[in-house]
Amino acid sequence: MRYRLLVEYDGTDFLGWQVQPQGPTVQGALEAALTVALRAPARVVGSGRTDAGVHARGQVAHVETDGTADPWRLRRALRGLLPEGVAVLDVQEAAPGFHARYDAVRRTYRYHVATAPRALDRRTRWVLHPPPDVAAMNRAAAALLGRHDFSAFCIIQSGTKNRVCTVEQAAWAPEARDGDWTFEIAADRFLHGMVRAIVGTLVQVGRGTRPEADVADVLASGDRRRAGPAAPPHGLVLERVDYPEGAGAGEKGRAGEGGI
Amino acid sequence: MRYRLLVEYDGTDFLGWQVQPQGPTVQGALEAALTVALRAPARVVGSGRTDAGVHARGQVAHVETDGTADPWRLRRALRGLLPEGVAVLDVQEAAPGFHARYDAVRRTYRYHVATAPRALDRRTRWVLHPPPDVAAMNRAAAALLGRHDFSAFCIIQSGTKNRVCTVEQAAWAPEARDGDWTFEIAADRFLHGMVRAIVGTLVQVGRGTRPEADVADVLASGDRRRAGPAAPPHGLVLERVDYPEGAGAGEKGRAGEGGI
Repeated sequence: MRYRLLVEYDGTDFLGWQVQPQGPTVQGALEAALTVALRAPARVVGSGRTDAGVHARGQVAHVETDGTADPWRLRRALRGLLPEGVAVLDVQEAAPGFHARYDAVRRTYRYHVATAPRALDRRTRWVLHPPPDVAAMNRAAAALLGRHDFSAFCIIQSGTKNRVCTVEQAAWAPEARDGDWTFEIAADRFLHGMVRAIVGTLVQVGRGTRPEADVADVLASGDRRRAGPAAPPHGLVLERVDYPEGAGAGEKGRAGEGGI
Repeated sequence: MRYRLLVEYDGTDFLGWQVQPQGPTVQGALEAALTVALRAPARVVGSGRTDAGVHARGQVAHVETDGTADPWRLRRALRGLLPEGVAVLDVQEAAPGFHARYDAVRRTYRYHVATAPRALDRRTRWVLHPPPDVAAMNRAAAALLGRHDFSAFCIIQSGTKNRVCTVEQAAWAPEARDGDWTFEIAADRFLHGMVRAIVGTLVQVGRGTRPEADVADVLASGDRRRAGPAAPPHGLVLERVDYPEGAGAGEKGRAGEGGI
């Protein structure tokens, strides 16, 4: 049986999504809980990996297992089996061929900043003080829209050969609390380290240490060393993952498709 | 010199506002940081005490000290001296007679709930599952408006003799995220444990285990044993404290008065 999961997590306490021997990961926590709940080994595949410290409100994953369970009961059982930093918001039976990574057509990330010191939301916001010039950051971000090779914003060690992504949206918008800003970026795919490299570069523009027009030149250069330093991981949230209409969901599970 | 502080804190790691020997408190953290920054002993008085685990976005306090500092420099110095769970958002010179507790005319608290499991905002939300009947909770909350003796919603051990409070606002409203609700309550003063006892009682109404009309009877009884159990502290935030127009702020400090 194949299930599709909608997952929220606080990346603070995890070494990222992907299972690794050095410590706790989100994928590892899900596989351990699902193996108990389903009484059978469960392998989890996410729509993509997130780095250590990065959060998600709408990660999508599929799990392939010999075990079976009613999706509603499975979701309820997982509540008591997962660590408090991971929550499964939805479980659906998936079509046999559904693949959380290969079938995804759009990922949306948000990067949260605050321009004053913070105590309460400090785990999910990068504090920028003094406040950057957000209008300049938005003008610079416009250069990222469309289909480009994003090698300049991909970590140098990446083994990915195809570096072409289509960015549909990339803009900063104010939040309800004065001085809070969110950068929302949506694309068909993202390279390793891409959002954090983009945010780090745009913040240099906002601080006046990099000209606005430079962002287009950096993109065209394909050279990661010309972009800015990566923004810290704790401000980044994988907000949602979209799939083609009707893809993946089995007969019983069409509700709540594709994100939060 | 007397200064007025606007303080945000994450109550998770503190034994409440008030200094005590058993462990870290917000008042203690502020006094330690201010004593270093001002190079003179500093005593901090808050608008009111908050219990262990309760948060604040807009606590107001005054500090009386023989030391002096430019308010802007003091605020900046505190950033490096306070633990990460406490942030001083604003510092102003206060009029000599300003008193954060006695001069306050209105306190506003918010209690945050979620009706689905949560990973990211779990430190500031009480998860209620299944979702309660919020319309019934709002009808019941209307009985609290106005001037009443709130003994029925005050912890039994309290030494406070005057239990009369005037509640100006008490209502649940939806938030941006589907299934999230916030209870906002404003009054001239609050008794010890009052908001959590009110929320715990209203949630019983929302779950159908207490009739709506019962809340008015509980209030009239003055008997804490008739109200519901206290809601957990981590959903509660002291949102703002208001002072009379012009009260307390010295010549240099009229901006940002009275809250967030």
